[in-house]
Formats: sequence, structure tokens, C-alpha cells
Amino acid sequence: ICFVDDSGDLKTLQDEYRFNNNDIQRLKPSQFIIPGFIDSHVHAAQYYNTGCSPRLKLLDWLQAFTFPLEAKFSDTDFAQAAYTKAVMRLLRHGTTTASYFATIHTDSSLKLAEITEKLGQRAFIGKVSMDVNDAGPYYVESSLSVAVKNCERFVNTMLKKGNPLVAPSITPRFALSCTGELMKELAVIADRSKLNIQTHISENREECRLVRELYPNSQHYTDVYDRAGLLSEKTVLAHGVYLHNEEMQTISSRGSGISHCPNSNMTLRSGLCNTKRLLQHGIDVGLGTDMSGGYSASILDAIRYAVQTSNILHIDCDLDFSNEDVPIGVKDTFRMATLGGAEVLNIDDKVGNFVVGKDFDALVVDVSCDTTGFDVFEDESPEDKITKFLFLGDDRNIQDVFVAGRRVVSGAKE
Amino acid sequence: ICFVDDSGDLKTLQDEYRFNNNDIQRLKPSQFIIPGFIDSHVHAAQYYNTGCSPRLKLLDWLQAFTFPLEAKFSDTDFAQAAYTKAVMRLLRHGTTTASYFATIHTDSSLKLAEITEKLGQRAFIGKVSMDVNDAGPYYVESSLSVAVKNCERFVNTMLKKGNPLVAPSITPRFALSCTGELMKELAVIADRSKLNIQTHISENREECRLVRELYPNSQHYTDVYDRAGLLSEKTVLAHGVYLHNEEMQTISSRGSGISHCPNSNMTLRSGLCNTKRLLQHGIDVGLGTDMSGGYSASILDAIRYAVQTSNILHIDCDLDFSNEDVPIGVKDTFRMATLGGAEVLNIDDKVGNFVVGKDFDALVVDVSCDTTGFDVFEDESPEDKITKFLFLGDDRNIQDVFVAGRRVVSGAKE
Ligand SMILES: [Zn+2]
Ligand SMILES: [Zn+2]
Repeated sequence: ICFVDDSGDLKTLQDEYRFNNNDIQRLKPSQFIIPGFIDSHVHAAQYYNTGCSPRLKLLDWLQAFTFPLEAKFSDTDFAQAAYTKAVMRLLRHGTTTASYFATIHTDSSLKLAEITEKLGQRAFIGKVSMDVNDAGPYYVESSLSVAVKNCERFVNTMLKKGNPLVAPSITPRFALSCTGELMKELAVIADRSKLNIQTHISENREECRLVRELYPNSQHYTDVYDRAGLLSEKTVLAHGVYLHNEEMQTISSRGSGISHCPNSNMTLRSGLCNTKRLLQHGIDVGLGTDMSGGYSASILDAIRYAVQTSNILHIDCDLDFSNEDVPIGVKDTFRMATLGGAEVLNIDDKVGNFVVGKDFDALVVDVSCDTTGFDVFEDESPEDKITKFLFLGDDRNIQDVFVAGRRVVSGAKE
Repeated sequence: ICFVDDSGDLKTLQDEYRFNNNDIQRLKPSQFIIPGFIDSHVHAAQYYNTGCSPRLKLLDWLQAFTFPLEAKFSDTDFAQAAYTKAVMRLLRHGTTTASYFATIHTDSSLKLAEITEKLGQRAFIGKVSMDVNDAGPYYVESSLSVAVKNCERFVNTMLKKGNPLVAPSITPRFALSCTGELMKELAVIADRSKLNIQTHISENREECRLVRELYPNSQHYTDVYDRAGLLSEKTVLAHGVYLHNEEMQTISSRGSGISHCPNSNMTLRSGLCNTKRLLQHGIDVGLGTDMSGGYSASILDAIRYAVQTSNILHIDCDLDFSNEDVPIGVKDTFRMATLGGAEVLNIDDKVGNFVVGKDFDALVVDVSCDTTGFDVFEDESPEDKITKFLFLGDDRNIQDVFVAGRRVVSGAKE
């Protein structure tokens, strides 16, 4: 982004920045641009299961649906096809940056990286690390040392490519899938190359109970990760539904962020995450689809469910908006979907809003397409139009998707 | 519907029912038909405000947004334009039957009836009755006798037309907008011509408190309507979030139904309605968008939010599905959107599913359109495809809409 200027004096701008008339894309009155959506927590390998209705809670769902599906990604051809569909779909929904969980398989995780490169999406790729799985030996890394080696090979291959848009993220699945030793080793690898780290935290009550049981010497769930050295400014913690104040203080002081996944939290009956409390503790909050825990691949869906989650937590709160304890609104969750996600992923120096010096990651939105699912009325303000898009829009309204100035999806309806 | 036959013996069927090859519409493998959606509670006049973000609770929202908008419908030209957009949009979303609240204006309510007739939608039209409004004289019927006269003129005009698809519904707004006397008079009019009745009940805690205050001699909110004679087999009660067991018993014994409006209940922070408990009491349950209390005009949205509402109410329930207290699933809410709605509106002898002798109200759904928002995979079962459509589909997937055998929307993408 070379300049942002609303003076309308085209001639002066052309002289200063030397662009041709051909370089200009004029928006119609029904169009506007917004920063690209950031999905700070999404399982690329689970796309196939999106929109199913598992009706199970987290731990049973992992065993019944998720691990068997992820195990298939040992086949890189299967992975190639499945990841291509997933990344294309996310781009079509306006996700310009995604922080992906892949699977435990190094080669197919590298395929996911290739696919995002090729399709032009900004991405963090997480080869999943897990050296514990009670569900059986069919989906687990065979030992601590194998898990460490896999991770190192994955990271080294990724770093050698040096793609500025696609980076590795260290990805211990969660405290129940990793030994304490593995988590420590992974933290060392992350620290060595200043990498992002992503994992799950405090999603479901039964999970929290088991973590307490398994780590009796840790003060709480957050402390398990903190002792392993996994909490840095580049750490993304998905969910955080049942965090206590003390845990939020630790997360805040380490500069780690939370990826709020409201659809997943309802679908898997995990709980309702109070994002207002997270924000009050100074924690960065982004949004995640957590597909396929959440049934949708679209961040628009997460924007809506994040509003509704806060609404539900504030059913009994005061009507008075001067009162502090009011729900967050769609402006807040739109911020989470853009700049908030950038903060969580520690790339807010590069993306998240339109500021000179940042990369141009953007969506051209059109709310008057003939085939859209809602009506916009003549006297509606620009803000009304944006709000309608956020509540009622879909991929039809997303005409163009830009990542780092490159158009990666272009007007499907033209 | 003359016959339902899966024998595949076309020749025999042709001989018996005498149809030509030209009459046959063959579905592609990616297509299936489902019963048309029934929106058992929707405010046609509020379509303009759909997808806004009012961030107020019920009573403040009515005063700030809703009454001022509805007041504009004194202008029948305004009404004509606004209602046309609303009805077209609902049809496009697959709503073959709608039970509409219009406004207090008789002539513009009659316009709504004309528009549904013309566009071919099955509908109940409710001219809203209200002889009390603390918000001011700009939106209220000026006296009890005027309100009764308005209602009678509306009903008589409608009945004279005798359209088999479009009927009047007696519509006292809710207990806070009507005097007890008006409610009694309306019950008499309904009983005289065996008409549907629709109103709101027990949506929001503050509303319930005010009703208790205003009707100290009634045992509870339900009793207010019951004493007025408003609870019949043809009565549709919207919301019912805070009903006590005794109230559910009364509703059940009168044969009245509940229109569950989950999006509205979250958006206006009203509460979470436990539909399982309603069903256990033998009460018919349908779905309503309650647009614009709910932000969406689509029953697909209601199907999803109804699942999530039950999920939230069952966050702490047992994992074990042999346990009775498990959430309702998408099959249940799909039923509410079709046959359940028909039961609530007392038209389940005519529509709601595919049974010989009923009218053909149906949607042709296509899940493999090029421009759809999700992917269907080759090995997915018919049930998987339906589930994906219910969770991820939208109006793009609805190719054709039939009401009473007439195609009223046809394949926008052809
Ligand atoms: Zn996850
Ligand atoms: Zn309503």
C-alpha cells in the first residue's frame, strides 16, 4: 500500500506515484473494499467433513470422525486433491490469510504449503505434532524422537523455500496429544527460528479435567503450555472457553493470542467463550472457523456466531448501553476477523487494515449483484451496506480477492 | 400429489395416471426434492431492517426501529414496493408458506395479500391489531371499536376473495399492545370463521414481567390469552422462551403451536427456547425467521440456529446418546421447518411432506451448482448431501420452488 488518499485529486496522485489510467480499478457505488479475512484457526484436512452433523462432543468427535479422516493424509495424492479443494474454497470465501492445522504427515503438510503458494494465499502451515493418541497407533507419531525429527524436517524444508507469504507454524495438537517432553522440544524449535506456534486450549470441560489429571504439577491448563515454553508473542491458542482470570493474565503477559471459534464451540457443545473478558485482559482475539469442528469454511459465519455468542452471554445484562457489560457487536467481530487476526498471528505489521506500508490484502465486495441473497435499499448508508454484507452476505458478494497486491480470485460473476 | 412410487416402472405409472413424457421432470444426480419451507412467524413489513444490527432488546427495539418503520405502511404505495421485495425474497429462499404479520393498516395489509396471491406463495396474512402503544399515538389503532372494525373489514375482504392459498390470520400483536377487551373481540371474530390466530408469547423477561403486572388476575402469560379465548388449534404463538410447565400444559391441551424463532431470540438477546421440552409436552413446533428480529429472511438460517440453540442448552449434558437429554439435531429442525410448521399453522392436511392427496409444495435442490458455496464429494450419501445443504446451502441451491403444483421460482441459474 503506497498511499491512502481521499482528496480525489487524481492528477497530483498520478504525478507523485506514477500510475497509469490502466492501473485504476474504479469501484461501483454498490462496491467497497475491506481488509481480507484472517482465519486464525482452521484444519485444512477436515474440509471433507464440513457441514456434517456429528452430534458428538470434542473428544468423541475426534475419535469417531476426525482422526480417521486425518489418517488418510498419509497418502500425498489424497492430500493434494483434498487440500486444493479446501484452499480454493477458503480463498473464495475471502480468507486471505489462514493459520492451518494439517495432519501428522510431513510430506502431505508440505503439499498444503505448495498449494497455498500456488493459489496465492497467505498462510501458516502446521504439520501437527502428536506423540500420544489413546485412540490407537493408526494416527500418532511413533515416538518423541520421530515427532521431533518430523517437525525439524518440515520446518527446514519450509524455511529453505523462504516464501514471504507461507511460513511454518509449530503445532502441538493439544496437551492431551503430546508428552511434556515433546512440547518442550517443539518450543525450542520455534524459538530457534522465531516461528509461530499454534495449539488448542481449554475448549471443553472434559478436556480441561483430563489435562488437570495428567499434569497435576501445573497450576492450570495455561501453565502446562507456559512451563513447556510454548507461550510467546507468536502463539495462537484456539478456543480458551474455560480460562480463569489467572490464566488470562499469563496469556496476556506472554503476548499470546486467542483464536475464537464460535461455530465450533456451539456445534461441538464445548461452551461459550466470553471474548469481552479476553479483550479486557488485553489479549489479542482473532476468529477461527475451526472447520470442521465449526461446520462452515467462511469467516463471515464466524463474524455472525461471534456476535451471537456474546449476545447469549449477555441475555440477562442491562439494557442500558452506558453500562459496561454489554455484548460485543458486529464492528468488534469484524475487527477480530481482520486486524485482530493479524495481531494474533503476529503479522499486524503486514496486514489487517489499510495502512501505508502494509501489504494489500483485500476483498472487493459488491452488495448489489443480481444474484445475491438479500436486498440493499437506496437510502442505506455505506455503514448499513457493510453491516448487511457481514450479516447476510456470502461468497457471491466477494468479487475480487487480493493477497499482497495480487488478485487471486477474480469476479466469478463477470 | 397423485402418487408416490419408487418402483421405477414408468410404463405402468403412465398408463394409470395418464401423463406424457413432456410432463416428466427428471432430477440430476446432484438434485433432490424436499417439502417447501414454512415460515410460521415473519413480519413482512420489517424486511427493510433485515440484516441491521440494532443491539437492543425487544421493547427498546420495537420503539426505536420497528414501530417507526411499520408506521410508514400507512402509505399503500410504499407498502406495495416493500412487500413485493419481501415476498419475492422469501420465495427465492424456498419459503412456500409464510404466516405474516403486516402492520395495523388494513389497506396495505390487503396489498400484502394481493402480492402473495400474485407471486403464488401460500400465506396467512395478519393485519396487526393493537389498541395500546406507550410509544405514542403515531402507531396504534385509535380505539377498541376502530380496531375491531378494521379487523372485520380486513377479514371480510379476504374471505370474499376466497383464495385457497391466502387466508387471513387474526393477529393481536401481543398482550402489551392490546386491551383484554380487544383480545376477546378478536377471538370471537376468529371463532366465527374458524380462522388462524397468531401472536407473540413469553419472548423476553422484561415483557413477561410487564404482562404479570398488567394482568394480575391471570395465572400466567398463557392464561391471559386463554381467558381471552385466543388459544385454539389454529393458534400460532411465537417464541415461548420462558414458558412454565403449567403454561405448556395449557398450550398443549388447547392444541396451539409454537413458532420457534432462534435467530431473533439470540439477536434481541431474548433467551434460548428449549424446543425439546415443548415437544415433550406434545406441543407442535415450527420455525420462524421473525424477520427482522432475526436478521435473516431464510428458513435455512432458522434450521441452523435451532440446532445451535439446542446445542447451547445441552453444553453440560451427558455425552451418552442413550441418555434422553440430548440436543435436537438437524433432522428435527428440518421437520420443524416443514411438517412441524404445517402442524402449527393447522395445514398439515395440505402440506408439509410428500403424501398422496396433499398439495405439491416443494423445492428442487441442487448441491452441485458451479457457483455454490460448498463442495459435495463423490462418495457422499443422499443423506450427507441433504445435511450439507441444510448447514451450508443457500438460495443458489434452490433451483425451483413449487406451491400447489405451480412453479413460482424457476432455476435462476439456467
Ligand atoms: Zn481446532
Ligand atoms: Zn415477531
